[in-house]
Amino acid sequence: MEMKLPGQEGFEASSAPRNIPSGELDSNPDPGTGPSPDGPSDTESKELGVPKDPLLFIQLNELLGWPQALEWRETGRWVLFEEKLEVAAGRWSAPHVPTLALPSLQKLRSLLAEGLVLLDCPAQSLLELVGSTHPRKASDNEEAPLREQCQNPLRQKLPPGAEAGTVLAGELGFLAQPLGAFVRLRNPVVLGSLTEVSLPSRFFCLLLGPCMLGKGYHEMGRAAAVLLSDPQFQWSVRRASNLHDLLAALDAFLEEVTVLPPGRWDPTARIPPPKCLPSQHKRLPSQQREIRGPAVPRLTSAEDRHRHGPHAHSPELQRTGRDYSLDYLPFRLWVGIWVATFCLVLVATEASVLVRYFTRFTEEGFCALISLIFIYDAVGKMLNLTHTYPIQKPGSSAYGCLCQYPGPGGNESQWIRTRPKDRDDIVSMDLGLINASLLPPPECTRQGGHPRGPGCHTVPDIAFFSLLLFLTSFFFAMALKCVKTSRFFPSVVRKGLSDFSSVLAILLGCGLDAFLGLATPKLMVPREFKPTLPGRGWLVSPFGANPWWWSVAAALPALLLSILIFMDQQITAVILNRMEYRLQKGAGFHLDLFCVAVLMLLTSALGLPWYVSATVISLAHMDSLRRESRACAPGERPNFLGIREQRLTGLVVFILTGASIFLAPVLKFIPMPVLYGIFLYMGVAALSSIQFTNRVKLLLMPAKHQPDLLLLRHVPLTRVHLFTAIQLACLGLLWIIKSTPAAIIFPLMLLGLVGVRKALERVFSPQELLWLDELMPEEERSIPEKGLEPEHSFSGSDSEDVSSRLGPLRRMCQGLGERSCPGAVPK
Amino acid sequence: MEMKLPGQEGFEASSAPRNIPSGELDSNPDPGTGPSPDGPSDTESKELGVPKDPLLFIQLNELLGWPQALEWRETGRWVLFEEKLEVAAGRWSAPHVPTLALPSLQKLRSLLAEGLVLLDCPAQSLLELVGSTHPRKASDNEEAPLREQCQNPLRQKLPPGAEAGTVLAGELGFLAQPLGAFVRLRNPVVLGSLTEVSLPSRFFCLLLGPCMLGKGYHEMGRAAAVLLSDPQFQWSVRRASNLHDLLAALDAFLEEVTVLPPGRWDPTARIPPPKCLPSQHKRLPSQQREIRGPAVPRLTSAEDRHRHGPHAHSPELQRTGRDYSLDYLPFRLWVGIWVATFCLVLVATEASVLVRYFTRFTEEGFCALISLIFIYDAVGKMLNLTHTYPIQKPGSSAYGCLCQYPGPGGNESQWIRTRPKDRDDIVSMDLGLINASLLPPPECTRQGGHPRGPGCHTVPDIAFFSLLLFLTSFFFAMALKCVKTSRFFPSVVRKGLSDFSSVLAILLGCGLDAFLGLATPKLMVPREFKPTLPGRGWLVSPFGANPWWWSVAAALPALLLSILIFMDQQITAVILNRMEYRLQKGAGFHLDLFCVAVLMLLTSALGLPWYVSATVISLAHMDSLRRESRACAPGERPNFLGIREQRLTGLVVFILTGASIFLAPVLKFIPMPVLYGIFLYMGVAALSSIQFTNRVKLLLMPAKHQPDLLLLRHVPLTRVHLFTAIQLACLGLLWIIKSTPAAIIFPLMLLGLVGVRKALERVFSPQELLWLDELMPEEERSIPEKGLEPEHSFSGSDSEDVSSRLGPLRRMCQGLGERSCPGAVPK
Repeated sequence: MEMKLPGQEGFEASSAPRNIPSGELDSNPDPGTGPSPDGPSDTESKELGVPKDPLLFIQLNELLGWPQALEWRETGRWVLFEEKLEVAAGRWSAPHVPTLALPSLQKLRSLLAEGLVLLDCPAQSLLELVGSTHPRKASDNEEAPLREQCQNPLRQKLPPGAEAGTVLAGELGFLAQPLGAFVRLRNPVVLGSLTEVSLPSRFFCLLLGPCMLGKGYHEMGRAAAVLLSDPQFQWSVRRASNLHDLLAALDAFLEEVTVLPPGRWDPTARIPPPKCLPSQHKRLPSQQREIRGPAVPRLTSAEDRHRHGPHAHSPELQRTGRDYSLDYLPFRLWVGIWVATFCLVLVATEASVLVRYFTRFTEEGFCALISLIFIYDAVGKMLNLTHTYPIQKPGSSAYGCLCQYPGPGGNESQWIRTRPKDRDDIVSMDLGLINASLLPPPECTRQGGHPRGPGCHTVPDIAFFSLLLFLTSFFFAMALKCVKTSRFFPSVVRKGLSDFSSVLAILLGCGLDAFLGLATPKLMVPREFKPTLPGRGWLVSPFGANPWWWSVAAALPALLLSILIFMDQQITAVILNRMEYRLQKGAGFHLDLFCVAVLMLLTSALGLPWYVSATVISLAHMDSLRRESRACAPGERPNFLGIREQRLTGLVVFILTGASIFLAPVLKFIPMPVLYGIFLYMGVAALSSIQFTNRVKLLLMPAKHQPDLLLLRHVPLTRVHLFTAIQLACLGLLWIIKSTPAAIIFPLMLLGLVGVRKALERVFSPQELLWLDELMPEEERSIPEKGLEPEHSFSGSDSEDVSSRLGPLRRMCQGLGERSCPGAVPK
Repeated sequence: MEMKLPGQEGFEASSAPRNIPSGELDSNPDPGTGPSPDGPSDTESKELGVPKDPLLFIQLNELLGWPQALEWRETGRWVLFEEKLEVAAGRWSAPHVPTLALPSLQKLRSLLAEGLVLLDCPAQSLLELVGSTHPRKASDNEEAPLREQCQNPLRQKLPPGAEAGTVLAGELGFLAQPLGAFVRLRNPVVLGSLTEVSLPSRFFCLLLGPCMLGKGYHEMGRAAAVLLSDPQFQWSVRRASNLHDLLAALDAFLEEVTVLPPGRWDPTARIPPPKCLPSQHKRLPSQQREIRGPAVPRLTSAEDRHRHGPHAHSPELQRTGRDYSLDYLPFRLWVGIWVATFCLVLVATEASVLVRYFTRFTEEGFCALISLIFIYDAVGKMLNLTHTYPIQKPGSSAYGCLCQYPGPGGNESQWIRTRPKDRDDIVSMDLGLINASLLPPPECTRQGGHPRGPGCHTVPDIAFFSLLLFLTSFFFAMALKCVKTSRFFPSVVRKGLSDFSSVLAILLGCGLDAFLGLATPKLMVPREFKPTLPGRGWLVSPFGANPWWWSVAAALPALLLSILIFMDQQITAVILNRMEYRLQKGAGFHLDLFCVAVLMLLTSALGLPWYVSATVISLAHMDSLRRESRACAPGERPNFLGIREQRLTGLVVFILTGASIFLAPVLKFIPMPVLYGIFLYMGVAALSSIQFTNRVKLLLMPAKHQPDLLLLRHVPLTRVHLFTAIQLACLGLLWIIKSTPAAIIFPLMLLGLVGVRKALERVFSPQELLWLDELMPEEERSIPEKGLEPEHSFSGSDSEDVSSRLGPLRRMCQGLGERSCPGAVPK
């Protein structure tokens, strides 16, 4: 390869260097209004009032092959993290945290201190400088495909207004001593193929010199590039007016670097990008950090309802009523009327303010209980199937079945051979001279015979096959959910498989069932659209056969039901309106409750199932509407931008839910064990998403294997275990109450969780409760503000792993990692 | 708390300061002969010729509470990694890589440069210094239990001869300016409760001064401690003769630190200890690194046989013989005689040298094939069960069974009611007037009746229950194996559960089976100890009914069998004799083959199954004999010391194997599906342990999600995929040959893998083959030595994850991580 050291014409030859100010290329040319390169999000940087400089794309071009085959080659690039060209493998490394050697930074500093620094250089003079002193990047044929490949995806990821910085480093043997130069253009220019992506270039750093041992210039060039990619250094160097400012910015960088000792860290090891970047607040001492609002916003009777759709749900009171042989539906109507009344009273008194006392402790208790009910019911119903379809043990009496035909007369028939003479292809054994055959029971009945024998009512193989279907759908759904975080397949495929895990698991189960064609129990779907109870109209009569005073007595169960509905509705609303969701529209706590009250009346009058807010489904809906930034630097996690707030999806979901009555011909193919498996999956997924579960796991871990949770850095382990044990005890108590005849006071006990939480203030200090739970309104005032600050904004190294495993309910009871990391946004 | 600033008497009060040279306490007092603190192992440091200084335990004591409640408190400790006292949580953090801020290192340097440096200070004068200027650590009652707790485990982990270094830092408001002092004692002294563990102290660093903003002294103290815990700094500072040497050592440390930029790394994040410490070779430029021996050692006919016991194995040729209706056993005897002859020829010609051509490519092909056979057979046999025990579909003809009794006369009996009149408790239905009942078939036969009907031969529920048992034992074994690397339970429990995963899975399966009591197919165990073939004696007659020339023709299959046995035997031997095992005794390639030949004769003459070396079992045996260092610093991984080489365990294993014939009454309770599940587990575990599998997985991963394997840093992805595709093609070809009548040439094809590998040299460059495979003897010479060195000794960050998942066969086809990290030892 020949030495390429072209002059000015080099640029012209490649792709006419257009000396255009960036303003003509980009819609967002003003350096003061571009997006912040590093703030956790736009919102945050707005809060901070940081002037938003354009994002910088840094590229390291190295001059290789002295003295025979000089060529410029791009060997590294930076936006947030470093990507290194693996020369031998011919590909870019994964983005990683750049690591430097201290001497290279120091050498860079001394080179710049003695070198040439041109700030606010007019582009014209730069072209003279650049054009006359250093060669352009070789547009080598071998490299072209590689460069072309990389070009497009990266360009799309960089936001409009991004600028380029180029570090040019290498050995030039004829130089007597090293030369360093740092150039900042007044107006950035697009310099053809100098940079991998065609961006206007503003910064140049030139590091050339005589041959040196080792990778001197490479490392120095990397140091310059890492420096240029640092947001704080960028901020300073954009405003620097002389060499002194530049060196001061470099020294400020050095002040803040983290140092790893040589004997304990392999310098070539690559650190993957952290899930949570350090907050830039700390690095801007002059900027005041805006104090965030309290965790629960002031509740207003606001206007938008669409956020969480109510869902059909049939509460357990239904069974109880029938036990006392009432005329059930009229009584239920009165309960509904009372509940609606109570709810309206709650709305009128703005009682939703009380949800401020629902801390994580209460939420977790509620959530864990729902999850456990899902799990218990799924397993219980599955085991019930084995009673319906008993397993036939050897020697069991449930063996043998005969099809007996009534003879035309009496004894005569016994001399006739088995009845269906024309049916030798089916089963008609020579059983002696009796009027019986070994036809299967359904066929027997069809032929006019009677199946006789204990084996006639057993269906073999169904019990174990149901268990297999149950386990298959459960594990398949779990596995598909985990596909999202696996390394395989493109992210679109993974996201699809993960989002539709339940549906796919059901389809698999149905497929298996259809393939084997066994008589498993299927979903029962009514054929007609009419009230299930025969003989009643669409409207429930208000009195029916009940005495009048029952309508007054209905107030008592209604009171309890109101508590349950209030808690369900309000906890869901609190979770959906959390700060992290960045909703633009106001919260509608009271309006929602008002709607629930009205619907309560309607459904009671029609005898339809009552409505509640179905936390899980509402959250899943919200989750599906997340908006994330698409343009993110390599290694950066997409930023959460907000929720696509609109009224369409909620409406469509419920129209489709209603339309599902037309799906009856399809739904009847779904085996029940498959559905039980999905219920189990939902319960397990919800249970594993709460911090409480993680703390229960801690009970089983030896101290040295526990993850480095922030919680554990600040609260003694025994106190953590005590808190967990109290929660377990509360849960146990709730479960016992739910299982006994005292179940009717269950809603009251659920509310009692708030009282228990209040009592915990006597056992735990506010600081401990801050880490283990949240603070109640009174407590918030009792902790000095600075006590909350210092380490609150950093996550432990392992807590990310915990949070990344959280399921759809993760917002309900957040993992520690996300909670303690205000800048971080759930993926 | 009162201010404690006692003088000399403080030491005496706590626990009489004994001014004893360390030699009186420790068996290994000479600083020149203690173990190296950092070398990957004793062996390695011996190789390097590094002088072994005693291990240093560093402790940071801080003076807190100025001015009211002064007290010394231990806030950090270091052996290899840092442990930090979580003051609020009252516990030690997990060990982590220490991170420092650069300014604290610089401040420490300037403080020491202006401060007091006493080197080789006699202990007596130190006591005066220490006693008169700074207070002892407060022996506060609150701290005592904590300190007591921590004391014992740590003391046991430190090797004999360890010394202590103490950093004392804090604010003393009355000082006008900061004071730094560094002391090295000529002879270390035990200073009572100054250090957490009672070790002789040699180094002291004192950093006191007026009140400062932030955590100045804490950070400076940490910097001093991290510095002292660096092996290279220790080496220098032990030999330093003046302040200049000390500062030079500090500067050398600074030269080598790794720097993380502030905007991309959260300084409070804790980095867990790396799986593989950086090699200290690079940091000792004066020490020549010893060149290691070639990968395959020179093969000698050495003496020890015990390393890999031969195991019974019945090869597939056995079935083939019978197909041709020969007198099988005599023919087999002749094959055995020929195999023994060929093997003896191989021994005599020292043919084992050829195993140097068995590279990883060959090993992986062999290993993958064995694993696939396990998987295929397990699944196939399981599916066969569903043919034996068919699933009863609705409407299938396999329904109904009747127990018919022969009447005493002819027609008369038809008028008698069902026969067993006295058996109303069992089943005797009124079926009209026939001599039949619905007894289950076995009971029917016992009563003298005949089961009639198509349903009599079907056993319901067995097929699905077998499938459940199969899956249960497979998944349970897999899960238990993974318990070893989970965070739960103490390591003893985890190790136990993991080591006995197969046994526990079998027990679980048997338990389930016994609980339900179904008639699943069980393991068939003969009741007597005798030849299985009826009518033959113990010795096989050499000719039997075969014509004489069959004994000559037997040479052809014997040739092929010899190849198979040679490969199996030699590949196992190569793997067992790998360098990493650090075997002390010589390799016995030819002696082993000689023994195989002799045993071949014996077993052929007796008609017993032939002997091979059963790679998996031999490796499991070897693995169970690993010796690892117990005294390891917090965060350090145990060092592999070697194999417990002896002749006892091998002998006992085979005595117990023989004794298992007395276990027959127990073994017959093991259901076959459970065993198939375990076979599946073994196949899957072995398959997932080879690098080949990891490369196949790469095919499914988008480039950006691929782990940061060293392989991928050096070989283009397309080349990696090409290599994998060729391996897949070879495997496919071998599988096809194995499945067709051409199976007899299978051993030849297996040997053909070596040829394919040789041909690959034309497709891939030696550098690529070095990363993808190993080098063949000729290629090794073709690569310049320096080409192999530079990055070879460092592992990619993610490769560790791969290697940690390796199963019992990991040594066979090592994961990338361990292979490329010579200092690292498998856990």
